[in-house]
Amino acid sequence: MSITTPKGFVASGLASGIKASGALDLVLLATDDGAAVPSAATFTTNLAAAPPVRVSRRHIAETGGLASGVVVSSGNANAATGARGRADAEAMCSLVAGALGVPDQQILVCSTGLIGIPLPMEPIERGIPALVAARSGAYEQAVDAATGILTTDSGRKEELVEHPTFTVAGMAKGAGMLAPNMATMLAFLTTDAAIEPGPLADLLRIAVRDSFNSMTVDGCTSTNDTVILMASGRAGTADPNVVVEAVTEVCAGLAGQMVADAEGASKIVHVRVTGARSDGEAHQGARKVADSLLVKCSLNGEDAYWGRVASDLGSAGIEFDMDKLTIAYGGVTVCRDGIAADHDEGAVAEHMAGSMIDIHCQLGLADGNGVVMGVDLGYGYIDENRTTS
Amino acid sequence: MSITTPKGFVASGLASGIKASGALDLVLLATDDGAAVPSAATFTTNLAAAPPVRVSRRHIAETGGLASGVVVSSGNANAATGARGRADAEAMCSLVAGALGVPDQQILVCSTGLIGIPLPMEPIERGIPALVAARSGAYEQAVDAATGILTTDSGRKEELVEHPTFTVAGMAKGAGMLAPNMATMLAFLTTDAAIEPGPLADLLRIAVRDSFNSMTVDGCTSTNDTVILMASGRAGTADPNVVVEAVTEVCAGLAGQMVADAEGASKIVHVRVTGARSDGEAHQGARKVADSLLVKCSLNGEDAYWGRVASDLGSAGIEFDMDKLTIAYGGVTVCRDGIAADHDEGAVAEHMAGSMIDIHCQLGLADGNGVVMGVDLGYGYIDENRTTS
Repeated sequence: MSITTPKGFVASGLASGIKASGALDLVLLATDDGAAVPSAATFTTNLAAAPPVRVSRRHIAETGGLASGVVVSSGNANAATGARGRADAEAMCSLVAGALGVPDQQILVCSTGLIGIPLPMEPIERGIPALVAARSGAYEQAVDAATGILTTDSGRKEELVEHPTFTVAGMAKGAGMLAPNMATMLAFLTTDAAIEPGPLADLLRIAVRDSFNSMTVDGCTSTNDTVILMASGRAGTADPNVVVEAVTEVCAGLAGQMVADAEGASKIVHVRVTGARSDGEAHQGARKVADSLLVKCSLNGEDAYWGRVASDLGSAGIEFDMDKLTIAYGGVTVCRDGIAADHDEGAVAEHMAGSMIDIHCQLGLADGNGVVMGVDLGYGYIDENRTTS
Repeated sequence: MSITTPKGFVASGLASGIKASGALDLVLLATDDGAAVPSAATFTTNLAAAPPVRVSRRHIAETGGLASGVVVSSGNANAATGARGRADAEAMCSLVAGALGVPDQQILVCSTGLIGIPLPMEPIERGIPALVAARSGAYEQAVDAATGILTTDSGRKEELVEHPTFTVAGMAKGAGMLAPNMATMLAFLTTDAAIEPGPLADLLRIAVRDSFNSMTVDGCTSTNDTVILMASGRAGTADPNVVVEAVTEVCAGLAGQMVADAEGASKIVHVRVTGARSDGEAHQGARKVADSLLVKCSLNGEDAYWGRVASDLGSAGIEFDMDKLTIAYGGVTVCRDGIAADHDEGAVAEHMAGSMIDIHCQLGLADGNGVVMGVDLGYGYIDENRTTS
């Protein structure tokens, strides 16, 4: 199983020399015949978006949601690099497009790594012809691609969902705590289902909302976050309502791999808020709790201090009534009607000692639901993030 | 110098038994003759506001901004305690009011400590008569008061500003990192300037905005935060425009003491944003940077990684143009027009090695300015916050 399992895609990866370590750092994912296929992308909302994000956003707008491929470099984010950075991102697309014999606009570009350092273009210019020549649908090249997008990830992140009539595959790198100097999250998805650009963009938005956007490691939004989904159509027409489930499953799997790989974290938490005024408010409340330094420290210490959860919900900017609040850890209610509830302390202690913590907050107001996945805060996060060296 | 230096105030503090340690835990601040004087208060915006906050808010509304005194307990926050908590907070006011011979509404109440545990009323009921009897304008009683409001603070926090015609004094406890289980910030201010309730409330809002509300330790908003300012009028009429400066100076001094006392923190940072679309947006941007886990870790590691600052500003929800951004650490410009600027690296390293870090972000858009004071993130914060024991 790999990113080229869905029919119609090829991939490759090589070590161009961006990374001093000599690791793989240049990746291509493309259609096997160079054809531009329906492609959708979601990008960081950060207004300090890096040049490759700006270039990819423009290209996909100009083609109306079609792409022949995406080129990815790792080790340098090409972020905070100004006009030179934009020219460099354009040049990466142009070199790949030339080698494939397609218009520049049909190539998307992503970079991940350190911010504020101009991209070393010499190794990239030298590497791209070989990268394009090496492209293949073989497993080995797909492994190189899934490896070449990584920075300090502990291993490849791949997912595959096979439906009777079509297939969806994905590969990804990152998440904040992992390698916060290179904090970018990148994910690339392929499917052989045939879907038009418009519905494809809609279903990617839904899948991202219910996976990557429901995950938080440190509340920081990278300058380079990008998710790209390409649909070759080789498996024939598919109902977007069916495809969205498969794409969401792949995205959720990749998101789970990212959180599980977060260095310095010892616990994963699912914060579930129900009974909110709306789904949006439930999500906002869950995110506030999952991002709370005090809650994250409590998780690290295996302390079910629900007062902090209540305090975060009360300051989350959502409708809230303390007297209607119920909080449960691992299914054990510790707070009911806004005050302490008698409960089985041994059962809660046992749950807190595990590596997967579940916090359920019932606001008792209406029917809004939301879940956000997060992690605890321990020494490891600080160790990883103190310096860039 | 003490909270009773301004003419017309008395104070007292005693160990009632709320704190198992036997430390001072019950405090009174009142007018020397029981008269209700113009008093203003600002409270936490947390919708999970604790019962004492709700009771004080109602009392000050009912009197139209007049109070004879405030009673404070420490060691238990009386938060997330429901109807019983509200009755307990009412009872504290009522007991003090009875002993002073004034209506209940003229007494305000604050509590600070652990959340979710009912207040032990027996020691409080036993202690209040002695507390009221001990009230005095003497220095010793003021020291007991300033001590009795503390939880795990390393020492008393007091400020005094003497103007030729009037005096403003303050005492405070807390700040998130200090004792995050008891994360409340409380501050009590007295002045002998004569000011009506309306202008007094206005000037307190301004002073709090420019001091306590421009400080962040961990981005968490407590359930109990309260600032109360009482004006005895004994020094005669004063121009509110002059008083606001003195009150702001006292508040800023107390805020500085809180940040300096933040356990686990080794650096204080002033994040200054200029050139924003408005003062509000400048403040919002500065707060995003000061609250950023990645920036806080960089400060701990003495790493001037400005890319993270740019990324936080870009995701702060304010108007932002990367190409116009300038960032300076300790006055040394490291980023100009959104890209790396050649600079004296030794000078930046020297600045980062100090205990007071200055980050100045010029957005280049308009004239909005704002400053937020924060701290770094180190092991100490986690040690303090892992468990409540």
